[in-house]
Amino acid sequence: MNAARSSIVGASVLTFSFCSQAQAQYVRLAELDIDPAQLEAFKAAVTEGVQAAVRVEPGVLVLYTVYEKDNPNRVRVFEMYTDAAAYAAHLETPHFKKFRATTDKMVLSRKLLDAVPIVLGAKAQPPGTSR
Amino acid sequence: MNAARSSIVGASVLTFSFCSQAQAQYVRLAELDIDPAQLEAFKAAVTEGVQAAVRVEPGVLVLYTVYEKDNPNRVRVFEMYTDAAAYAAHLETPHFKKFRATTDKMVLSRKLLDAVPIVLGAKAQPPGTSR
Repeated sequence: MNAARSSIVGASVLTFSFCSQAQAQYVRLAELDIDPAQLEAFKAAVTEGVQAAVRVEPGVLVLYTVYEKDNPNRVRVFEMYTDAAAYAAHLETPHFKKFRATTDKMVLSRKLLDAVPIVLGAKAQPPGTSR
Repeated sequence: MNAARSSIVGASVLTFSFCSQAQAQYVRLAELDIDPAQLEAFKAAVTEGVQAAVRVEPGVLVLYTVYEKDNPNRVRVFEMYTDAAAYAAHLETPHFKKFRATTDKMVLSRKLLDAVPIVLGAKAQPPGTSR
């Protein structure tokens, strides 16, 4: 893990990247309230679903899944796809359908929003890469 | 731009990456309501500030800045830093201070949250890279 973090910081000095609004990434925001009694099970299910989506789906660029520090039952996801068709395809994958079925009773409320990029600033070496 | 997008999709077939909660990235979420009359000026200022931060600051990993499609005056930022110290340093930079001064009268309300990663899924070739 330390090696991975070192490579991120090392790369970050050299390279960076931006997207402008003109680029076609399709961004979605999800806000989910999770049943506190099932929070750990939800975290396991969402982790499995995110890992499968990023690994298998060429159109899934980012699925950053976090919870609010002061409200740990409130989960937020910043989702970025290559385009709207990639998002539509994501909803039809076996791993997404499994995630939704597994977590259906864990999610107390669900807010899903379309978003439009203003500026998508990121280091060229993304967080978490260990190569 | 098309070349850049092609490189993203091409790379995405080959490589992917994850962060687990054990990694130390520091995530913040910002939700800003912008004065509609000053929205374009705000977008220009935030774009300049984000580009400077990602270019200059080694500890700034991601500043994904979007607005809600159904509520264009509501801006959201998904912010990822290497650690809390990198965030603290960001607040002291000249480009951030300029951004805050420039936009102070444009922002009608500001909600800032600490967040904790569950799973940070992303393609290894991040959105926007054109190398």
